[in-house]
Amino acid sequence: MVLGRVVGRVWATAKDESLIGQRLLIVQPLTPELSHTGKAVVCTDSTGAGAGELVYWCRGREASFPFLPQEVVTDSTIIAIVDQVHVSRSGPC
Amino acid sequence: MVLGRVVGRVWATAKDESLIGQRLLIVQPLTPELSHTGKAVVCTDSTGAGAGELVYWCRGREASFPFLPQEVVTDSTIIAIVDQVHVSRSGPC
Amino acid sequence: MVLGRVVGRVWATAKDESLIGQRLLIVQPLTPELSHTGKAVVCTDSTGAGAGELVYWCRGREASFPFLPQEVVTDSTIIAIVDQVHVSRSGPC
Amino acid sequence: MVLGRVVGRVWATAKDESLIGQRLLIVQPLTPELSHTGKAVVCTDSTGAGAGELVYWCRGREASFPFLPQEVVTDSTIIAIVDQVHVSRSGPC
Amino acid sequence: MVLGRVVGRVWATAKDESLIGQRLLIVQPLTPELSHTGKAVVCTDSTGAGAGELVYWCRGREASFPFLPQEVVTDSTIIAIVDQVHVSRSGPC
Repeated sequence: MVLGRVVGRVWATAKDESLIGQRLLIVQPLTPELSHTGKAVVCTDSTGAGAGELVYWCRGREASFPFLPQEVVTDSTIIAIVDQVHVSRSGPC
Repeated sequence: MVLGRVVGRVWATAKDESLIGQRLLIVQPLTPELSHTGKAVVCTDSTGAGAGELVYWCRGREASFPFLPQEVVTDSTIIAIVDQVHVSRSGPC
Repeated sequence: MVLGRVVGRVWATAKDESLIGQRLLIVQPLTPELSHTGKAVVCTDSTGAGAGELVYWCRGREASFPFLPQEVVTDSTIIAIVDQVHVSRSGPC
Repeated sequence: MVLGRVVGRVWATAKDESLIGQRLLIVQPLTPELSHTGKAVVCTDSTGAGAGELVYWCRGREASFPFLPQEVVTDSTIIAIVDQVHVSRSGPC
Repeated sequence: MVLGRVVGRVWATAKDESLIGQRLLIVQPLTPELSHTGKAVVCTDSTGAGAGELVYWCRGREASFPFLPQEVVTDSTIIAIVDQVHVSRSGPC
């Protein structure tokens, strides 16, 4: 999973019917130190995350599992809203 | 999922038979601010998207789900035509 | 899927038995304008593609589907020989 | 799989219910020579790894298999704590 | 699949039990011209490959198939030892 921040939203009328009723959020990937890194992605959401919130999301086949038994066509889903990140790079290497 | 714009099309006579009747579109990935980013990909389409349209597409195993029960051999499928993108990077970080 | 050109071949005697009888081709990824981009990959082939031909290939779980019911251990398979590519980047963005 | 070192931890209250009770660790990818390389990821853990430990993790669909029959929504799971790495680049090429 | 050379090995005592008895090799990805490219990965092995050997490996869900019916948690498996690579970039583009 990757850390990120919700930075936007996408609206689409013509879409795969499995996506009807799904919010589509734009997420900017972050490093553990919360700097921007890499390309923003469009995610479905299983948590109720809002604009500006720190989240992490899951990619690939698992991204559709939070919606089962509904089969949502998605490869990226927000699965948690992050309360706190602790990073310690003081170890060896 | 990733935002992109339909910038072309591919024709192929010799192909896996599951692809017969499928339009193959070339999609240029975009940032949420709609700048080009990364490499163009070839996508199947479940939406009827046309040249120049803003879309997003799904990668991996899920890319074949919009066509079920037909088993289409594809790893990238356009699943929505985008009406509007709203981005707000004014939050913290 | 990604566009590419067949630029070579790999021979292997000691291999997973599901690969016996499969041609293994080296494919160079191309942009839609047919410039080189990214790293060459080794692909199985479901089309009969030959050296120098323009193709596109499928990655991941779907790469093994053209060979079903035979279970071929592959993550990249050529699924079409390209006749023609049309690219128009004249649209907005 | 990729080598990495546990450099942090993430806490999340609002999350997919399959993640309740799972520790979420931040892992920094390493080269075989144990230099930093690439972006840190958030992993579930099947080994009991602690801060500073050298590990490797598995990505994609398999990442959820160590937790079966529980279906944990994860795309990255630590599957081993590394005792020793031996690298020899003295061969041809 | 990707070409690579076996450049090392990893030992791990604490690991997912599906990995008990599996050799874990470090593989350096190579271009078709056998230059280094990209990051070394840790692979399971279905071929008996040794140090210094030229191989190619499979990623993702298929990486666990050579071990079936045993369910090995792996996303990268060496599936062939390469005898010979032939590359011809003299074609158009």
